[in-house]
Amino acid sequence: MIKAAVVGGSGYTGGELARILSRHPNISLEAMTSRQNAGKAVAEVMPFLRGFNDLSFVDKLPNNGDFDIVFLATPHTASMALVPQFIECGVKVVDLSADYRLKDSQTYEKWYAHQHTDVENISKAVYGLPELFRKDISRADLVANPGCYPTCTILSLAPLFQNGLAKGKVIVDAKSGTSGAGQEPTKNTHHPNCGSTINPYKVGTHRHTPEIEEVLSEITGKDIDVIFSPHLLPIVRGMLTTSYVDLAEGVTKEDITMAYKSAYDEEHFIRITSVPAIPAVVGSNFCEVGFEIVGSTLIAMSSLDNLVKGAAGQAVQNANIMFKINETTGLDFPGLGV
Amino acid sequence: MIKAAVVGGSGYTGGELARILSRHPNISLEAMTSRQNAGKAVAEVMPFLRGFNDLSFVDKLPNNGDFDIVFLATPHTASMALVPQFIECGVKVVDLSADYRLKDSQTYEKWYAHQHTDVENISKAVYGLPELFRKDISRADLVANPGCYPTCTILSLAPLFQNGLAKGKVIVDAKSGTSGAGQEPTKNTHHPNCGSTINPYKVGTHRHTPEIEEVLSEITGKDIDVIFSPHLLPIVRGMLTTSYVDLAEGVTKEDITMAYKSAYDEEHFIRITSVPAIPAVVGSNFCEVGFEIVGSTLIAMSSLDNLVKGAAGQAVQNANIMFKINETTGLDFPGLGV
Amino acid sequence: MIKAAVVGGSGYTGGELARILSRHPNISLEAMTSRQNAGKAVAEVMPFLRGFNDLSFVDKLPNNGDFDIVFLATPHTASMALVPQFIECGVKVVDLSADYRLKDSQTYEKWYAHQHTDVENISKAVYGLPELFRKDISRADLVANPGCYPTCTILSLAPLFQNGLAKGKVIVDAKSGTSGAGQEPTKNTHHPNCGSTINPYKVGTHRHTPEIEEVLSEITGKDIDVIFSPHLLPIVRGMLTTSYVDLAEGVTKEDITMAYKSAYDEEHFIRITSVPAIPAVVGSNFCEVGFEIVGSTLIAMSSLDNLVKGAAGQAVQNANIMFKINETTGLDFPGLGV
Amino acid sequence: MIKAAVVGGSGYTGGELARILSRHPNISLEAMTSRQNAGKAVAEVMPFLRGFNDLSFVDKLPNNGDFDIVFLATPHTASMALVPQFIECGVKVVDLSADYRLKDSQTYEKWYAHQHTDVENISKAVYGLPELFRKDISRADLVANPGCYPTCTILSLAPLFQNGLAKGKVIVDAKSGTSGAGQEPTKNTHHPNCGSTINPYKVGTHRHTPEIEEVLSEITGKDIDVIFSPHLLPIVRGMLTTSYVDLAEGVTKEDITMAYKSAYDEEHFIRITSVPAIPAVVGSNFCEVGFEIVGSTLIAMSSLDNLVKGAAGQAVQNANIMFKINETTGLDFPGLGV
Repeated sequence: MIKAAVVGGSGYTGGELARILSRHPNISLEAMTSRQNAGKAVAEVMPFLRGFNDLSFVDKLPNNGDFDIVFLATPHTASMALVPQFIECGVKVVDLSADYRLKDSQTYEKWYAHQHTDVENISKAVYGLPELFRKDISRADLVANPGCYPTCTILSLAPLFQNGLAKGKVIVDAKSGTSGAGQEPTKNTHHPNCGSTINPYKVGTHRHTPEIEEVLSEITGKDIDVIFSPHLLPIVRGMLTTSYVDLAEGVTKEDITMAYKSAYDEEHFIRITSVPAIPAVVGSNFCEVGFEIVGSTLIAMSSLDNLVKGAAGQAVQNANIMFKINETTGLDFPGLGV
Repeated sequence: MIKAAVVGGSGYTGGELARILSRHPNISLEAMTSRQNAGKAVAEVMPFLRGFNDLSFVDKLPNNGDFDIVFLATPHTASMALVPQFIECGVKVVDLSADYRLKDSQTYEKWYAHQHTDVENISKAVYGLPELFRKDISRADLVANPGCYPTCTILSLAPLFQNGLAKGKVIVDAKSGTSGAGQEPTKNTHHPNCGSTINPYKVGTHRHTPEIEEVLSEITGKDIDVIFSPHLLPIVRGMLTTSYVDLAEGVTKEDITMAYKSAYDEEHFIRITSVPAIPAVVGSNFCEVGFEIVGSTLIAMSSLDNLVKGAAGQAVQNANIMFKINETTGLDFPGLGV
Repeated sequence: MIKAAVVGGSGYTGGELARILSRHPNISLEAMTSRQNAGKAVAEVMPFLRGFNDLSFVDKLPNNGDFDIVFLATPHTASMALVPQFIECGVKVVDLSADYRLKDSQTYEKWYAHQHTDVENISKAVYGLPELFRKDISRADLVANPGCYPTCTILSLAPLFQNGLAKGKVIVDAKSGTSGAGQEPTKNTHHPNCGSTINPYKVGTHRHTPEIEEVLSEITGKDIDVIFSPHLLPIVRGMLTTSYVDLAEGVTKEDITMAYKSAYDEEHFIRITSVPAIPAVVGSNFCEVGFEIVGSTLIAMSSLDNLVKGAAGQAVQNANIMFKINETTGLDFPGLGV
Repeated sequence: MIKAAVVGGSGYTGGELARILSRHPNISLEAMTSRQNAGKAVAEVMPFLRGFNDLSFVDKLPNNGDFDIVFLATPHTASMALVPQFIECGVKVVDLSADYRLKDSQTYEKWYAHQHTDVENISKAVYGLPELFRKDISRADLVANPGCYPTCTILSLAPLFQNGLAKGKVIVDAKSGTSGAGQEPTKNTHHPNCGSTINPYKVGTHRHTPEIEEVLSEITGKDIDVIFSPHLLPIVRGMLTTSYVDLAEGVTKEDITMAYKSAYDEEHFIRITSVPAIPAVVGSNFCEVGFEIVGSTLIAMSSLDNLVKGAAGQAVQNANIMFKINETTGLDFPGLGV
């Protein structure tokens, strides 16, 4: 049994990790930390876990070396202070924060307005998008779990860029449920402000922009510019991205179809469909991708559950790969459908 | 032209007062106070008012006596400190807080956990439900504008109790949109907590309970117990109450129908309907009431816009009555319908 | 392996049965019928099942005797024509329609306006609420799976009536997500009509009324009147009931607490909580119950997922009991939580 | 008093026309037709209009010549059969269908798959977007009222194209409330299918595409390609468009700001804001526009109420212009704000 801990476990992502791991046959969740809820039973803070989790939150892990893997559900800048401690002890880490996602620490510092204090481990970190970097993940001690928007966007665009079918900049019009904003009440997530509308926010300045750019640039070997416009949807769970990119010369619909098929036909968690739907993936680790072509513009669409494939589910998928167990273990359940 | 001010004007109720008064032919809104937004243009804080309001928020009114009427959109306990100052200057007051709604100051102190420092004016205050207390309102200098839940509930029950058609306690199962919670972000109104569910809250302890009890008791001349269960709906505007009460012996459906008709056929803002609907009243000062009888139980239903008939609209209706102008002035517009 | 079929499988309940059974280690779903979708792959009609279900819908089952159990997700009046055929072949049946829920066929005929053509089997049918009738279910060949509203309501009231703690009629103010209305578009479920409001419907005339009455009457040995007011919520999945009943003389809060505890402490799928929440149960077979006392009135609240504990999950729970396998098999997963 | 009729009046747009005209001081709504509801009181079919409309629906207008203006809220292809009859009688027409919006009848026939039977009047029709074509509207007898999406999109893009600030194709990612789909229940608007998600639909094939293209091409004098992706939002009223276009060489943020200001500073119904919001315009004839620049891409955003500025409100605005009365008459009320 693989021993796991979740650090920063009282947020939505922590709860989701506990929800998924409660049913995982090979990973045993043995500790969850929370400064705010230290001493309280996890199932008291998160009643939906009653009967599935008998831990109490601890302020911090008693002994880092007790675990085979830790999931860091900590805010960015907090993770970089913790990662070296775990790596030193030989504990594998899946970091759900943004701290190790960007290969270029200067890009990090520019977008996160914070100096990176663990540049050394950035280079060791693998970007945890299994459908693209499975092999590297399987050898990694530190996985930077992707953001929800980048996961959704990249999965819908990678087959194009891998095959040279698209060119130029990418426009990503993204729509997310409110759980992506975390559990702290804010003006943006106050129901009267967001419950009967769709609000654009951080247009052009959202920190997931450089993450998408880096990965697409890595795939293609050249700089890809991303215009990223996130919108807050009046739903709790789920995300849809609609992305626009120019097709390369002479590319046909069949080329695109083939590219998606060859990329994803063997991928358990990716479903190619005509119009991706959120209810089809909610509660699950699945991602739906689809496309339309209008003139020379390709419209790539993608849906996922921001807390599962966009966060905790993908983290568990990465852990499975790191420990060489079946990648779908503990994650092999369908979305709610309706 | 009647000169008006709104004190505590930067919340939802303040905005709604400004929205309504912007179109009122006889009342001129000349000042709005806000501690937090003092110095800012109202239309900057509330962009939907651009072109309809060229005031800037002031910290406090320069001279109380400059106004014919003030609308207090202040929190409870704040109003009681302000009311005497205005009354002394001969300024009429519509207080939208709870401070003057309860005739019994001990009931107030019990439910609001705060001593009442202006007991004297309580007795002068008139409960501002025009359909019941129009005559008193027309003579009042101080009107206690009813809560949204009491307005909705009482309007659906008054015809029964006025005519001795109901007996015993009343059960009120109430459902409100989130704008009723005000504009301060809280855990309860955080979208992930309320956006895809209906949450009971303050069951049996909500402060609108004694308000409903007092008015129904006043109507009947005996104590009426109210069991009040509010629920937070995943909508922004609008409210529905479903109330249950035993019919008195021998009461028929026709008796009930007659009671509603005789109470409301001449009332502009009350619409008798089979099933009250929220969209039919949203944006307007209308209240829909309807009923069903099951065995000896009467089920009274009622819908209104919590910010209009449940707050600002009713306040303006009261002001119209206080100044002897046509009661529907500035309020004579239909709900959105859809 | 227990061989199962779903008859009438292309609705929401059919999809939910397929979703749950896809992960059931002891029950193998071997056929699904659908007149409308005959010939189509299930995963084509319900893409969220791709990879979890490789059946195609058939018009009708080739041979009834091929199955150990059938789940009838057929409309009421259709089930009564099918049940005898299966019972004769020795196939166990869980009927999700209303056809066998009411013991009194005249009550059935009154509320469903349709003659019952299989009165004989009514007496053999067991009402499939495991927390109340587990032993009978374990011996049954035909289980009448309860309605969603009755499940939610009865679970929150049974401990009171079982222990003589409540008296008189029961008022049930129920709120349901729209998936309960099925997948056929109607005026009631047209988004502009229901998406930003809460609509009372069939107040006093909903067919779940006699179902609740019969069960509560059976528990208490005397006739219990139920005043039932359903409301359509602007959410897709989930249900909350708020029920009101008078406490018997001298009953204390401790009595109530003890009654709930003794009824449910050993029940895996029932969670006693202060305020039941819908997100805590969505996607799962759990039901949350809680209560408040105001004066001599008890307010019982309850939440569940109408498609799981309110339909397909409970059906599988019943099947587990009928086949003497662990009752939680295939159902032992938590709600989404958020 | 200008005498008006609404043809096809029992849909959402018809109700909205009646709602707005009920408060119009210069236009008197004297007849409403509805095949389906002929003989019924308008206020019976649309209870929110009780007290504001005492008409009954008629099957057809008794005498076309009785009116000064008719609003056609008929489906496309129906309008073209009616328009000539009214024009002949000297009755002005605002057609809310698509029949006269496209100048090129072949484009119409291609997108609407229907032959145009009144090509003659196409050339006389003026596209009813007052902020662009006010002068032509003032002289027109036939106004083709724009679609909701085109209104929202074009208003946010016109200042760029008018001033040569943008180049190349336009990508429009549009999000609409469900009332835009009309009142007929469909699979797309069935709440379980749309109430907790955002659904792309008719991507690249929506009929508003050529309408946007024609107007932008007319403005610029060259063909503008539009990539148009509509999405259905889980809200009832309101629309947001997010459009992407390349800036012309050397264009600065100041150039853009100036272009918007010079286009809209005098426009009563257009509000320039940083981030357009739906609640700020719901219930009103206002449209909010705003923009961001990312690299060389301009992101233009825009919000409006699809039933008001996107349909009935704009129709009344056009009628005001056609009759040379103040353009804001009957429309001079703010949005709900919250």
